[in-house]
This record gives sequence, structure tokens and C-alpha cells, in this order.
Amino acid sequence: MDLAMLERFVGRQKVALVGSVDGDGFPAVKAMLMVKKREGIRVFYFSTNTSSMRVGQFRENGKACLYFYRKAWFRYQGLMLRGQMDVLEDADIKLALWQRGDEMFYPAGPSDPDYCVLRFTAVEARYYCNLHTESVRL
Amino acid sequence: MDLAMLERFVGRQKVALVGSVDGDGFPAVKAMLMVKKREGIRVFYFSTNTSSMRVGQFRENGKACLYFYRKAWFRYQGLMLRGQMDVLEDADIKLALWQRGDEMFYPAGPSDPDYCVLRFTAVEARYYCNLHTESVRL
Repeated sequence: MDLAMLERFVGRQKVALVGSVDGDGFPAVKAMLMVKKREGIRVFYFSTNTSSMRVGQFRENGKACLYFYRKAWFRYQGLMLRGQMDVLEDADIKLALWQRGDEMFYPAGPSDPDYCVLRFTAVEARYYCNLHTESVRL
Repeated sequence: MDLAMLERFVGRQKVALVGSVDGDGFPAVKAMLMVKKREGIRVFYFSTNTSSMRVGQFRENGKACLYFYRKAWFRYQGLMLRGQMDVLEDADIKLALWQRGDEMFYPAGPSDPDYCVLRFTAVEARYYCNLHTESVRL
């Protein structure tokens, strides 16, 4: 699998589709704005509301996936990363990921208790392009 | 919740993001082409490969979700439908949903054993628009 190509593909995405499993065992999906910080296609950071349903789900069950796709007339690409989601509330990481505009969502600033960071760590990638699928451990 | 507005929103989508839970309990997401047949926002039909990983997952565990989203500069909308996915291999339903072009994916035609139909039945809708979320049983 061409990991450099996958990294360019991910780098062009504005939104990540984040998968979780809810307390009743149902899958859930949510689009989240792409991240301020990322390490290749293995570690992704998102900021979100501590009080959100998704954070509650990830505290109970950290099994997660990220999905990215692009459909052009000649080509359909999809990348799914499977891994672990951790909820981080450490003041340092919250401050490090704070961006201008975040106060719209977290009025109290970087120390707002309703602001937290989700860190996704991938262990496997599955890439689909034009009827062909391949997987790799990361 | 304005179900007529949600139906128009879904009617404009070309792709559905389909969530499942794999054999290890991880969530999985896949973009699937929007369906040939749909009953409001409650029942959706997809055609897919019987041999696909996703069909195997749904045979083991029918818990599923569909997700649709749209991001415009002024507005972000997301709709998640939670429900049950059934794998249908009945010849009548396969023939009824067959479309021109499907032979690219299923060379043997409507009776191709690698062609099957997924039927999603929603029991709950959760709609997000600009920081506001509401849920409804369907």
C-alpha cells in the first residue's frame, strides 16, 4: 500500500467521518472538522464538547474508526482507519490545540471544562479504489 | 422535527455513509451509492456484492446506521438514522432493483450470486444543524 499517497489523500480532507459504537451496540457516525494536529495517518487529534454524546460513547468504548472518501467521475476512493479513541482533558494538550475561533464553541477559552480533545490512534488501514481493496497494519 | 425537510435533505444525497459493527466490535463506515428505492427516511435499499466484508458483518450483526451530511459556509447539517440492516437474496427483489450499468459489478446479471440487496430500516433519527441536535423515533 502506498502510504505516502494515502497521506496526501488524508491531507486534502476537510472533514473526517468518525465511527463509534453506542451503549446499545449500534454503530454511530459523525462528521468532524479535520484536525489541527496529525501524525501521518496514524494519530489524529480533534477538539469537541466534553458534554457531547460521542465523548460519552468513547469513554465507555474506545473502539473507533475514521473514514475518508472522494468520489470523482472517473474514480472512487475510500480509506478506513480502525483504532482506538482516547478522551484527553489535560490542560497542556487543550492549550496546544486551541485555535482562533474555538471560543465560538467553548466560550470559556482553552480551560473551558466543556472543551476536550479526542485522540485517535490507528492500528489498521483499509483502502478501496475502483473495486480493489487492500489492508495494512500501521 | 421537520420530517419533510429531512426527506428533501436525504433526497439530494448521492452517497450514504453506512455504519456497521465488525466481528471484533469495532465500528466500520463505508460510502455506498444512494439507493434505487427508498421509503421516506425509514427504509433504504442498496445493492452490493454478496461476498463483500460488509455483507458478512451484517449477517452476523444487523445493527446499522446511515449518515448524511452537508457542509456549506453558513450551515452544517448532519442526519444519522439508527436501525437494522437485512441482507436480501430473494430473486424478485434482486430483479426489481436491477439497473442498467449493474452488470459492471455483477457480470452474471440479476441472478448473479455475488449480487445481493441490503435493506436498512430506521427506528430513530438524530439531526444536527448549527450546534442544535434533536432526535425522533420513526
